[in-house]
Amino acid sequence: MFKIEKKISKSLARAGVLQTAHGEIKTPAFVAVGTKATVKSLTPEQIKDAGSQIVLTNTYHLYLEPGEKQIKRSGGLHKFMNWSGPMMTDSGGFQAFSLGVAYGSGINKFIGTLAPERDDLDEAYSENKEKKAQVTEDGVKFRSVIDGSLHFFTPEKSIQIQNDLGADIIFAFDECTSPHASKEYLREAMERTHRWAERCLEEFKNLTPNQQQLFGIVQGGRYEDLRKKSAKFITRLDFDGFGIGGSFVKEDMATAVKWVNEILPEEKSRHLLGVGEPIDLILGVENGCDTFDCVAPTRMARNGTLYTRKGKINILNAKFRNQMSPIETGCGCYTCQNYTVSYLAHLFRAKEMLAATLATIHNLYFLNNLMSQIREAILNDKFSEFKEEFLKNYKS
Amino acid sequence: MFKIEKKISKSLARAGVLQTAHGEIKTPAFVAVGTKATVKSLTPEQIKDAGSQIVLTNTYHLYLEPGEKQIKRSGGLHKFMNWSGPMMTDSGGFQAFSLGVAYGSGINKFIGTLAPERDDLDEAYSENKEKKAQVTEDGVKFRSVIDGSLHFFTPEKSIQIQNDLGADIIFAFDECTSPHASKEYLREAMERTHRWAERCLEEFKNLTPNQQQLFGIVQGGRYEDLRKKSAKFITRLDFDGFGIGGSFVKEDMATAVKWVNEILPEEKSRHLLGVGEPIDLILGVENGCDTFDCVAPTRMARNGTLYTRKGKINILNAKFRNQMSPIETGCGCYTCQNYTVSYLAHLFRAKEMLAATLATIHNLYFLNNLMSQIREAILNDKFSEFKEEFLKNYKS
Repeated sequence: MFKIEKKISKSLARAGVLQTAHGEIKTPAFVAVGTKATVKSLTPEQIKDAGSQIVLTNTYHLYLEPGEKQIKRSGGLHKFMNWSGPMMTDSGGFQAFSLGVAYGSGINKFIGTLAPERDDLDEAYSENKEKKAQVTEDGVKFRSVIDGSLHFFTPEKSIQIQNDLGADIIFAFDECTSPHASKEYLREAMERTHRWAERCLEEFKNLTPNQQQLFGIVQGGRYEDLRKKSAKFITRLDFDGFGIGGSFVKEDMATAVKWVNEILPEEKSRHLLGVGEPIDLILGVENGCDTFDCVAPTRMARNGTLYTRKGKINILNAKFRNQMSPIETGCGCYTCQNYTVSYLAHLFRAKEMLAATLATIHNLYFLNNLMSQIREAILNDKFSEFKEEFLKNYKS
Repeated sequence: MFKIEKKISKSLARAGVLQTAHGEIKTPAFVAVGTKATVKSLTPEQIKDAGSQIVLTNTYHLYLEPGEKQIKRSGGLHKFMNWSGPMMTDSGGFQAFSLGVAYGSGINKFIGTLAPERDDLDEAYSENKEKKAQVTEDGVKFRSVIDGSLHFFTPEKSIQIQNDLGADIIFAFDECTSPHASKEYLREAMERTHRWAERCLEEFKNLTPNQQQLFGIVQGGRYEDLRKKSAKFITRLDFDGFGIGGSFVKEDMATAVKWVNEILPEEKSRHLLGVGEPIDLILGVENGCDTFDCVAPTRMARNGTLYTRKGKINILNAKFRNQMSPIETGCGCYTCQNYTVSYLAHLFRAKEMLAATLATIHNLYFLNNLMSQIREAILNDKFSEFKEEFLKNYKS
């Protein structure tokens, strides 16, 4: 399923190819987030033209609306949303916690790197979620954000839903913890996630065989002993690949990922959940991750925040009204090839929908192109030079 | 500039080709409305793929934001918005009245056919606008909807702005009256519009020659004597083509258009302003109009109202959640070729931007395809058969 093409000495970075039932992904790669079976404001052709090889959609949201059975009747997610390439679904765990019982009741925003950039940033998380989310050994009880109805996700239920949805890569049901959680709670949640991982695998084997791959999720927060314990436990199970989940304050991310990836088997693919900042992507690759998803790049685009090699710009800044050049000279994206910043600034000021489309195309292209350049650098044994050069120019 | 290819006996219908500096328009044709230099939610490629030959943008809105000088510096509207085909701008008259001083102060919605389907339906119009809009012999004073600042449009100013914007076809500055206006006021406004028409032509001749065509506008409301008087007056002036403006209650439209087009010279093109309902398009063609613009088809699309050969449907109706077929079987549009109604219903329920894109593509394609079929019918001398067949199926 995963083939390493090249490894880098003195780091965990590697370039590879991840095979799925709907084609291959050249890694490292950024996964475009299409939460509700659409990458907001883009057609599948535009997603592909922006260089995206793979899309991630959201189990929790699609379970609530239109329902996984409806999507199954439509022939599965690929047919439903007209995306013929590789696809992932997350397990719904993060949303069940953050949008579920905790929703609207004194929730706090994450200050960490991973979790806040997973889907539903704005709705975030509760420090007290262990009380509000009603996590039990069996699963998670939560309320629908649509109509307030009560729902219950178990590991088995998550796998069944993801099986109906029909993505190529699916994830085990995990509990995503707050960066403020106590070590005691982190350990408890991690051990529950491990038991759930075994139940997910069991359920996956019981279902009609298909070409889906099931990835297990490593948790453990910011603690070395927990992360290593989790990596070892998940490694022993028969997963097709791995996700690294959880939440850290920003500085801890690369370290925690390294602890985990030094343990995970080299020959299986590793996905870092909820990470999409350019610098974090480079650090993630350096520390052994192959794929990444994050809602932030597309959400930021809709708010007018755009990537350039020098850092992010906000298109609503007055000076951009008169800029007759593209967002970035030399950028190969559809937006930069055809429109000035002046036009884009006009669209944002006028609150036109095309603003979101053109900005999203640019940000996706920027990250896809970054990943493609990282891949080239690895293949040519120039990863550290690339990293140094990029970091020198990019102001975060 | 305009060449008739085929006329129909017993009606005023004709098929032709309208030449512009950015290519030809095969008529009859529907003009896609792109008010603020964007057809909402679509890229220019998507507009073209939906079969649109020509786009109309709005002088009033572009004057306020980003400003006509900014667009001129960008190389004109075509370059600014990346549309290489034919383009029209309206004169800004309708918006100066409806969005200007009258805005927000006891305004009423139109009940007519023409005006309400011109841009800015929701903001509509004031019955008392003659008091509030500060129309003088010289022009119209109005307040910006953006910042409340005061502006003054004269016929000369409108032509200067449209010249800077650089569309292929521009319109004379006219006063669009309410269907409730007294005959006395209609006559007064019409005569003022005639004097403004002469001033527009004069200004147009004084500007640096370019390849723009200036169309004069016939007014006169629902009165036969006024309409005929207006048509005769505008005919005598040296316009490249004509617009038919104003507002009627629905039943009066075809009759009023016929009065006008029996007088306007056959060899010049005629644009019916603000008309886009399928049945009105057929009646408009039958009574001698070549092109039509209307914001309603794209606005309705964004609200989930979609055309079919049997009439309009609203995608938010519960039954559509389970419809696994396209909006209309056999429809050649991108949306119907690639997506089920079920998916589209999901996107609308989830308030996803792609909903607007896919629905707009369908509605534009439907009208463009309708116009293309009307054209074929005229060329094959089967217009009345086509009309009968269409009206038999279409429930408005």
